[in-house]
Amino acid sequence: MKVILEQIAKSMRNIWRIGADDPAKAVHCLKVGLALSLVSIFYYMRPLYDGVGGNAMWAIMTVVVVFESTVGATFSKCVNRVVATILAGTLGIAVHWVATQSGKAEIFVTACSVFLFAFTATYSRFVPSFKSRFDYGAMIFILTFSLVSVGGYRVDKLFDMAQQRASTIAIGTSICIVITVFLCPIWAGSQLNRLVQCNFVKLADSLDGCVAEYFKKKDVSTNENEDEETNKKLQGFKCVLNSKGTEEAMANLARWEPAHGSFNFRHPWQQYVKIGAAMRRCAYCLENLSICMNYETEAPDQVKNHFGEACMSLSSASSKILRELADMIKNTRKSSKMDYLVFDMNSAVQELQETLKIVPIEINRPEDDVKSEKDKEGDRTMAMSLHEILPVATLVSLLIENAARIQT
Amino acid sequence: MKVILEQIAKSMRNIWRIGADDPAKAVHCLKVGLALSLVSIFYYMRPLYDGVGGNAMWAIMTVVVVFESTVGATFSKCVNRVVATILAGTLGIAVHWVATQSGKAEIFVTACSVFLFAFTATYSRFVPSFKSRFDYGAMIFILTFSLVSVGGYRVDKLFDMAQQRASTIAIGTSICIVITVFLCPIWAGSQLNRLVQCNFVKLADSLDGCVAEYFKKKDVSTNENEDEETNKKLQGFKCVLNSKGTEEAMANLARWEPAHGSFNFRHPWQQYVKIGAAMRRCAYCLENLSICMNYETEAPDQVKNHFGEACMSLSSASSKILRELADMIKNTRKSSKMDYLVFDMNSAVQELQETLKIVPIEINRPEDDVKSEKDKEGDRTMAMSLHEILPVATLVSLLIENAARIQT
Repeated sequence: MKVILEQIAKSMRNIWRIGADDPAKAVHCLKVGLALSLVSIFYYMRPLYDGVGGNAMWAIMTVVVVFESTVGATFSKCVNRVVATILAGTLGIAVHWVATQSGKAEIFVTACSVFLFAFTATYSRFVPSFKSRFDYGAMIFILTFSLVSVGGYRVDKLFDMAQQRASTIAIGTSICIVITVFLCPIWAGSQLNRLVQCNFVKLADSLDGCVAEYFKKKDVSTNENEDEETNKKLQGFKCVLNSKGTEEAMANLARWEPAHGSFNFRHPWQQYVKIGAAMRRCAYCLENLSICMNYETEAPDQVKNHFGEACMSLSSASSKILRELADMIKNTRKSSKMDYLVFDMNSAVQELQETLKIVPIEINRPEDDVKSEKDKEGDRTMAMSLHEILPVATLVSLLIENAARIQT
Repeated sequence: MKVILEQIAKSMRNIWRIGADDPAKAVHCLKVGLALSLVSIFYYMRPLYDGVGGNAMWAIMTVVVVFESTVGATFSKCVNRVVATILAGTLGIAVHWVATQSGKAEIFVTACSVFLFAFTATYSRFVPSFKSRFDYGAMIFILTFSLVSVGGYRVDKLFDMAQQRASTIAIGTSICIVITVFLCPIWAGSQLNRLVQCNFVKLADSLDGCVAEYFKKKDVSTNENEDEETNKKLQGFKCVLNSKGTEEAMANLARWEPAHGSFNFRHPWQQYVKIGAAMRRCAYCLENLSICMNYETEAPDQVKNHFGEACMSLSSASSKILRELADMIKNTRKSSKMDYLVFDMNSAVQELQETLKIVPIEINRPEDDVKSEKDKEGDRTMAMSLHEILPVATLVSLLIENAARIQT
């Protein structure tokens, strides 16, 4: 009994934390509740009931289906729903008219046209460029088309029905849009911006942490709390690895949003996807760095000391650039310090290469036995990976300069 | 005019290729068309019309919304829809009864309960473990609950309505299930299996290609066609990097599927997700390998020759393991050759390490100037990355042995 209660308490805490970590989610839930209650109250009012009739359920349905957490998603669904309904309704009425004219073949014409349009619309959902924008619209198109062309056979009051549906959908969508835009709006664009910015900071933290951890002197005692925090920071790049899907979805939705905050309507959201791809390449390098870190055999202290300083300075220069990029993303403005920082990093790379050139002499010192030779590989790989970060970081900086130029 | 026609022709070819590359997609479209036509014909039949009434549109709606390309997805949506409808219907009737009893506060009670349940259901959609299985169910729950509790106020024939809705949804879901299962079924499980298998083969191809490319003798002339094909193979690992989302979604859906082919009902689908993660770690290594390959400065021939043989043998041993794993996945059976192959790879690693030990002597030969020193890094990193593949591949083999043991 007690065990069960504890289990429940634990899962309740987990559920609570989801809302506490991201209040936007809780706000979204409140907004859904509010929108639905509003629609219900609408439904209770006599004059409206007379005007819209039993079809008021379409307003409820529209709210439930269309209401999404970000403004962009709600907009895209509203537009999709309205356009698809109008298009499918017109087509459905046309097909119905043709079917009635054809006399006995009526059922045949209707069934064939349903088959044909359903096939086409479903097929179009597999075309990637279409799917990313109009997936929901295609579904609504099939739905409305079959309802109108098939249902028309029975209902006979086609135009009345069409008018009612249109007005109820208009009520539903306008309630949704008003509530999403004016009540604590959650913009997909801002979220994307914040995500990219956080990812830059996480990369910088991971890079710093990785290199510092590797060259850390062992005799320095650390308390456990600190260790845990460092570990969390080290794992930051894993989030970057997994954020591809989210970024693409957000960029897709952000296109639908009107101007808000510091973003214009035609903000170059696709640039964020490219930046994300560049960041992921950085994260791959970090992944391999962290694999190197976990080798059982470790490089001897003298090798570490030899490389330590140069590596540290390169990594701090790189992470400074990453942080500066995060700031640039935050302010959507080109930073003046950027050129200076890139120059700094380049000179750090030069320095590291100089250090590498001196290695062979060290290698041949008698106390460096064969085993340490192998370990040095790990070290070399590390230096190398840092070196690899250079082109990627440059690529990123170019991209951002590009984005920033469009933004300002 | 001609330009526009060419554009249209080109996009038509692209659209055609989507269906030609994966006939399952075209089959799915045909099935959707068939299911909808069937429902329309149902709708035309008098006896059915009398029984189910104007609510037959719910059958059409069910088919449009529930029909998905894989059996697992259709099953999960059907179950979600049926369970959520029953649950929400019962609750809605209860709330409606309470509201009627409470006299004047009726509208208040209804609006509050709608707000409360909509909030709870929307919030539950943010809980990851709930979302992965019951996301659609939560939406249907909100929809049905608001329709019943609000609509009940007007319609007065609540029980009749509930019965009609239940029967129409039953018709819709049964048509969907019969068509998906018995007409060219597309199993999410089989697709997941094939995806994982393909990814193994792609990894093996990329690994082979990468290493062969690097150690290729430059004077061998290659024709362009071959080059293009190699390049395509080399890029294979990029697919592996991007397949995370697909794998997880498929594994989720596969859980809903009954036994089919060589898979039981409780096939360990989550193992596939783990295998996928291990494969992605391999792919990260390959990504870095391919970055090394593209360095402008290249290692001198003698260094290449020194490492060439050992690297080639290690890579071929690794890729043999990957291919064997692909076969194992295909046959869902543990392979007897595996132990032997792993032993082979381990000895190849040993050999490479031996080769590395001899390097220092070579480094100091006069003709190796400082510049080649830097290049050797690239080479070393390469060897190192191959070395890194070892633990990952071992991890994979362990995982598969695990999976295979459960499977047979």
